[in-house]
Amino acid sequence: MSDTPVFGAGLWNFATYVDRYATDGYGDPRSTIEQIELAAEVGDISYVDLNYPFTAGVSLDDVKAALERTGLKAIGVTPDIYLREHQMGAFTNPDPDKRASAMAIMQGAADAVRELGARYVKIWPGQDGFDYPFQVDYRELNRLAVEGMRDLAKANPDLKFVIEYKPREPRTHMFWSSAAKTVLGIQQMGVDNVGVLLDFGHALFGGEAPAEAAQLLIDHGLLWGMDVNDNYRGWDDDMVVGTVHITEIFEFFYTLKKNGWEGVWQLDQFPFREDVVDNARTSIRFLKALHRALDNLDEAALADAQARQDPLAAQRVVQDALLTCMA
Amino acid sequence: MSDTPVFGAGLWNFATYVDRYATDGYGDPRSTIEQIELAAEVGDISYVDLNYPFTAGVSLDDVKAALERTGLKAIGVTPDIYLREHQMGAFTNPDPDKRASAMAIMQGAADAVRELGARYVKIWPGQDGFDYPFQVDYRELNRLAVEGMRDLAKANPDLKFVIEYKPREPRTHMFWSSAAKTVLGIQQMGVDNVGVLLDFGHALFGGEAPAEAAQLLIDHGLLWGMDVNDNYRGWDDDMVVGTVHITEIFEFFYTLKKNGWEGVWQLDQFPFREDVVDNARTSIRFLKALHRALDNLDEAALADAQARQDPLAAQRVVQDALLTCMA
Amino acid sequence: MSDTPVFGAGLWNFATYVDRYATDGYGDPRSTIEQIELAAEVGDISYVDLNYPFTAGVSLDDVKAALERTGLKAIGVTPDIYLREHQMGAFTNPDPDKRASAMAIMQGAADAVRELGARYVKIWPGQDGFDYPFQVDYRELNRLAVEGMRDLAKANPDLKFVIEYKPREPRTHMFWSSAAKTVLGIQQMGVDNVGVLLDFGHALFGGEAPAEAAQLLIDHGLLWGMDVNDNYRGWDDDMVVGTVHITEIFEFFYTLKKNGWEGVWQLDQFPFREDVVDNARTSIRFLKALHRALDNLDEAALADAQARQDPLAAQRVVQDALLTCMA
Amino acid sequence: MSDTPVFGAGLWNFATYVDRYATDGYGDPRSTIEQIELAAEVGDISYVDLNYPFTAGVSLDDVKAALERTGLKAIGVTPDIYLREHQMGAFTNPDPDKRASAMAIMQGAADAVRELGARYVKIWPGQDGFDYPFQVDYRELNRLAVEGMRDLAKANPDLKFVIEYKPREPRTHMFWSSAAKTVLGIQQMGVDNVGVLLDFGHALFGGEAPAEAAQLLIDHGLLWGMDVNDNYRGWDDDMVVGTVHITEIFEFFYTLKKNGWEGVWQLDQFPFREDVVDNARTSIRFLKALHRALDNLDEAALADAQARQDPLAAQRVVQDALLTCMA
Repeated sequence: MSDTPVFGAGLWNFATYVDRYATDGYGDPRSTIEQIELAAEVGDISYVDLNYPFTAGVSLDDVKAALERTGLKAIGVTPDIYLREHQMGAFTNPDPDKRASAMAIMQGAADAVRELGARYVKIWPGQDGFDYPFQVDYRELNRLAVEGMRDLAKANPDLKFVIEYKPREPRTHMFWSSAAKTVLGIQQMGVDNVGVLLDFGHALFGGEAPAEAAQLLIDHGLLWGMDVNDNYRGWDDDMVVGTVHITEIFEFFYTLKKNGWEGVWQLDQFPFREDVVDNARTSIRFLKALHRALDNLDEAALADAQARQDPLAAQRVVQDALLTCMA
Repeated sequence: MSDTPVFGAGLWNFATYVDRYATDGYGDPRSTIEQIELAAEVGDISYVDLNYPFTAGVSLDDVKAALERTGLKAIGVTPDIYLREHQMGAFTNPDPDKRASAMAIMQGAADAVRELGARYVKIWPGQDGFDYPFQVDYRELNRLAVEGMRDLAKANPDLKFVIEYKPREPRTHMFWSSAAKTVLGIQQMGVDNVGVLLDFGHALFGGEAPAEAAQLLIDHGLLWGMDVNDNYRGWDDDMVVGTVHITEIFEFFYTLKKNGWEGVWQLDQFPFREDVVDNARTSIRFLKALHRALDNLDEAALADAQARQDPLAAQRVVQDALLTCMA
Repeated sequence: MSDTPVFGAGLWNFATYVDRYATDGYGDPRSTIEQIELAAEVGDISYVDLNYPFTAGVSLDDVKAALERTGLKAIGVTPDIYLREHQMGAFTNPDPDKRASAMAIMQGAADAVRELGARYVKIWPGQDGFDYPFQVDYRELNRLAVEGMRDLAKANPDLKFVIEYKPREPRTHMFWSSAAKTVLGIQQMGVDNVGVLLDFGHALFGGEAPAEAAQLLIDHGLLWGMDVNDNYRGWDDDMVVGTVHITEIFEFFYTLKKNGWEGVWQLDQFPFREDVVDNARTSIRFLKALHRALDNLDEAALADAQARQDPLAAQRVVQDALLTCMA
Repeated sequence: MSDTPVFGAGLWNFATYVDRYATDGYGDPRSTIEQIELAAEVGDISYVDLNYPFTAGVSLDDVKAALERTGLKAIGVTPDIYLREHQMGAFTNPDPDKRASAMAIMQGAADAVRELGARYVKIWPGQDGFDYPFQVDYRELNRLAVEGMRDLAKANPDLKFVIEYKPREPRTHMFWSSAAKTVLGIQQMGVDNVGVLLDFGHALFGGEAPAEAAQLLIDHGLLWGMDVNDNYRGWDDDMVVGTVHITEIFEFFYTLKKNGWEGVWQLDQFPFREDVVDNARTSIRFLKALHRALDNLDEAALADAQARQDPLAAQRVVQDALLTCMA
């Protein structure tokens, strides 16, 4: 029996949410500290990824104290560069002042990473991209996205940065849209402290086979973080992992295992209407079962089937491990 | 030359927006009165569809006065039954108290329709549906959706109600999801004062040919309202009409014309990042060109091509009218 | 332990295939008799659905003899009304002669149903629909589709007919595209011997929740047949059942069970590149495990979760049965 | 007024087709020579891309003679490496003998390119990829795809090769699936005679903005060919260009023009049910109008709008040119 995985979660898993219809929000706002306490209440979470800036009135010292009190550690810090101020983009905003203000927030997140001893700054430039045909000059968009990220990385050579790609939402087209396109952009930067965080649901939503995307990133030495959830392929629904795509999430974790990928199994879910602690516990309950399935998988038989590219033999081997994992 | 169409717009076209990322909103909130004034500023809009309740501090008398002052008329009133209180559904909420409070809001909207002399109450039960496999009992969901709507219609026999269907968002699966399913539900109600409002973008997003959906509803005597916008088929992007699907929006309006459908050409767009007046003007500029294209379409030649189901001949006829309509 | 389900399969599961690229076919053609023998070789299949006309040189007597010899029974007969002759449609072909020749084939299939003692004629009008915007007059298309089916049903009042709906392929838009639209069309026919065959993969592909579509058809008394397979939601891939959507196929069968639906669990798969017997066996191996999961499902706990529309509790109950079913 | 574009077409635009339903084909087979003659009949086509091997009984000399007689030139040769023999892949087939036989066909195509004086060998490895989760080892798949292509390119250093990517069909997942992933693979090859052919419809279908994909390839010096068509985004429908996505095809050609891309405007369409000559003529009629729109586009105003990323101003400029281009 292999060691139980180390679990983590974006702190936003424990927030409340708003969308364009329920404009009064799905629940009362929660402070960063309250979110940390809820994460700790789950019982199996060791790491959190924190939004930066923290909620109003919460200082870095407050966060440090809360982490210490609850025994949680920071894995990363995610700067909020997708709010009103940067609705037209952070790196790719047409207004240089807005680009500068986004950079200042990211620099603040970098400082928080240092203070918290976290592993990386996670960059998710949600507003970088476009909505309409003919809205942007694509070469210029690429230039701004790559140069800005390069500047940030060079200004903080002691830190690691991970880009989380996603095909769309909140823009109809986001710039960092796929694993392969993100690798190309990182190559253009010419730096060695920028990698990728793969979100399982983003890969599914973008039409990638998530396991194949993971292998591609591993083969380029760039898979530096990951998080999981589920969706119906047509949108980033951020549902509980394992509720729709059981086989493909298993293949994703099998790919990580086969490559000796050691890292935190992180949740990125938006329980709009659910109890946030129950939501995380249900996810981790499934992930633990999946981990048992990995232990029980007949890897030799699977490799044999894959050598022939025989999907039927492969499926039988997989189902034998997967459909017994809650026993 | 036929008469210029009468244009309308949901008042939310002139609001500001929020989503799950830009939680501080894409702009400062606007009151119902400010939205009415912006709608009037467009210059071509005659009718508005109003959210109910109005924004804080705005009374029905205030709204009446603003409409009179600006020369706008109310076409419909849309009750907000998709906020926090009804996040688990309005008609299909598992909690009877929540169903009752939703009904009270809708009754308020019905009263506003009477006071404003509008044509209908527009029901968009955005939170009615489900998110996960196994979450609901589908027969029970159907029963609640149909009986609730029947009760509302029977309680207000002097009014008309229109249901606006949409496949998903904010739920991953909405109950009123397609034209055909909505017709079936209305049949089950056994009332004669419930019809359908077809949103062009919702039909596209749901995989319908919007013109075919319109014909289906007309043939069942149920197309009582419509609004337009555009998207990339994968989501309800609520973009400016005519920016992506020029041919299909033309076919939609051609179908309405061929059937002698007389009604208001309404906008349902969410200009998250754009100037709302410019957004509406750009839309109406396109719709006026489309109206000219309808006048110039060689309907006999088109009918001849359609009798043979000849798509090439049909396309040439269509392009001759469409690709000259800005001249 | 409930009785093992009765399994069936479309005979085309045991054919070879061609597509627009591998124009020389994925294997040598097989006769109807060879297909029957392969179906029998699977070992768990009791019923087959047969394409009509049979392959060249095979008579009805040959088929009867082969069925008797192998112990298989005919559940249905599927007329081939989607070949070259009817590429512009069977019921909705603009050419009345083509409509007549399609009707003759279907009448032949009806006669075969009588001779074989099958349960129904299965109508899948694959070429009925359209490809391009503006190609057809939608009202006329609906008239032809409904009137033709009515004529066929009235000409054979002693038989049952099932329509298998599908959103697209080989047309970009098929006429019988969803459960709800098919119910509406059957209502227009005003006959009582036309029902629906629900294909799990078609429902998924069309954006329906298959279990919800099944409940809708059951509630209208029209779910007269079903078949299963799997896909990635974007196309009718006709893959082995249970290889992608484990939870949703389980929900589909749970819905059938809850409604006391008694019928044959049929396969509709296209093993382009796989051994056809191994393909069917792998499918049935999964379906038997799923049947065990149904037996082990805590239905009371599930009903309790559904009464609250609590997706997390429901998922845990479901996973307990599903992820132990291969044990 | 700029020069009229040079038009071309894949010879398969003039073939007949088969699919998995109309197994008797949508028309009688046509020889390579007949296809050439039909291409010439269109009147505006200068270049053709030829499938290799030619149809039975047609020699290279026959083809040369037919091209000379009709005045057509070969732009490329496309080896048929997606037939029965290579149903499990050409480069990525698990069987080394099958990989060798695919290589032999491609070498034959390379020789034909030399003989015909064409510009490139076009590689579309339609069967390279996978269908099921867990079917393949992704690293091995990547290795086979890249090494095989490198071997081919190195064996023919005097020739150019273009890879045509596509996300899926006939496999549910194809290896060369996007512009970015193809660039990465070409980089791994370390050769300078492999580029990319961008198919507008494949980009749309894969969720790319085709104009953005074109810019990406141009910026990597790899856009060596292109062809156009249209679809509904969910499948590679290979419809007549301009029948669905008028604005996005205009943006695609605008991007080519802005970058000074000089090349042939090629058609890749599958007129299953249409007259092939009429189909090509209807396409070219639209493309000529689009070319006029390019001439009339106010590029300065567009650049100004793009500098602000203002989609509304951009759309008005675009519509002024586009919706007058048939005048």
